[in-house]
Amino acid sequence: MTGRVILVGAGPGDPDLLTLRGARALSEADVVVFDRLAAPALLELAPASAERIYAGKEPGRAPMSQEAISAVLVERALLGRTVVRLKGGDPFVFGRGGEELLACVEAGVPVDVVPGVSSAFAAPAAAGIPVTHRDVARSVAVVTASSAHGDATDLSLVATATDTLVLLMAAGRLEETCATLVAAGRPADTPAAIVQWATTDDQRSVSGTLSSLPAYARGASVGPPATLVVGDVVRVAEAVATAVDPANAPSIPTTTARAAGPGSRGRAASA
Amino acid sequence: MTGRVILVGAGPGDPDLLTLRGARALSEADVVVFDRLAAPALLELAPASAERIYAGKEPGRAPMSQEAISAVLVERALLGRTVVRLKGGDPFVFGRGGEELLACVEAGVPVDVVPGVSSAFAAPAAAGIPVTHRDVARSVAVVTASSAHGDATDLSLVATATDTLVLLMAAGRLEETCATLVAAGRPADTPAAIVQWATTDDQRSVSGTLSSLPAYARGASVGPPATLVVGDVVRVAEAVATAVDPANAPSIPTTTARAAGPGSRGRAASA
Repeated sequence: MTGRVILVGAGPGDPDLLTLRGARALSEADVVVFDRLAAPALLELAPASAERIYAGKEPGRAPMSQEAISAVLVERALLGRTVVRLKGGDPFVFGRGGEELLACVEAGVPVDVVPGVSSAFAAPAAAGIPVTHRDVARSVAVVTASSAHGDATDLSLVATATDTLVLLMAAGRLEETCATLVAAGRPADTPAAIVQWATTDDQRSVSGTLSSLPAYARGASVGPPATLVVGDVVRVAEAVATAVDPANAPSIPTTTARAAGPGSRGRAASA
Repeated sequence: MTGRVILVGAGPGDPDLLTLRGARALSEADVVVFDRLAAPALLELAPASAERIYAGKEPGRAPMSQEAISAVLVERALLGRTVVRLKGGDPFVFGRGGEELLACVEAGVPVDVVPGVSSAFAAPAAAGIPVTHRDVARSVAVVTASSAHGDATDLSLVATATDTLVLLMAAGRLEETCATLVAAGRPADTPAAIVQWATTDDQRSVSGTLSSLPAYARGASVGPPATLVVGDVVRVAEAVATAVDPANAPSIPTTTARAAGPGSRGRAASA
């Protein structure tokens, strides 16, 4: 009897940002195929007897190819297993979930998708930045700044189209990315922030402008995984920080470790 | 002693798409302030003794103003209560959560944000449509098609900027919206789909093109709440339907009730 595959969005980092439905899928898994960014606590939601297969792509190591990942999902399901494919963020937002969905369907394997909280919106939120805000931002675009997975887009096409622009996988090419956006017409003094390890205990964020941010981020050694958010909404977080403590009035560069910023105040008060 | 406010994203409709952290927040709530689209099952996660305040905006009824909503959050928190503000989707994606965040901060009330699964990505996913897909879509923009909340954007600015375009609150002005996108340069034969009541038992979707969809949706009486997705990614869902049953090969218009489409097949197999 054929099993099934469930593509589960793990959310942005904090294991408590998994959905109830995702948690139930994990609890019923015979096999979990997971990525580098999946929180260890999530793997513990699967039965101890479940097979755990690492499919992450790490710098300097030969990654499991997308074809190989799809093949293992199909193979295990055809053996009758319930296979959970645990993917960071949302499976369908730069997660290549569509390819895995099609591979399963073409092999006659029942497949389901459990959406997840995307880092595209949650990483800015964790730094106190809403991607839309009345009278400030009425549109948001999401792209990736990395070309590693063949997902890179021509940034000049999206540089000025929306009020807010979110760029995933932004740490590696931050200077080039910001320069490209300015060259494409986004003003150099546009507020911008980068958030590393969003929603985890290691979260850090740095804010500035398109012209100043790369140096600030380099000075703060911000690395992957990181999300870049560009637009006037970045100022909302500064307004929050100022209201909490006038001594926090925008002093760019603002480097915020989770222990000291709005995110952590939220965390301390968190459910 | 001052209480606190937690802005919780309720997700796209299915109560099981609430996050674990959101569920815990509800279980600790003294007060829940909720919207029209919040699933009744979510309100049951709050203690029976919790005060429940309806803040929804219904057609034909005087809505609670945004200022009144913010005021009630602050007032209850200042009484020492733990107040959960339950918002459909994600609080910071056209949810006006930023305004409520600032209102709390300015009043000295501790406030936290629990991101939710946004309908912007989950509604297309529920119809089998990934908003990004290798070699098909490397960028996605999200706007609202409604001007009801002052969030409307100039669609001509975003019509062609990204491969995929998602428009929330799209049912009311579907014909005008599609025409505007075509007038702004998006080809009239661009695939497009509208998904109503995404991820709920009442989910329905209709697909076609920018030129054909409005009539198909009208014929199928698609109304709010609905999400419009525009771009070649719509064809991924058609490829899935074809692979599942060649008799399903694209026969536009495709009207898919949850009981018969990829979403429901997924649902039947769902965790």
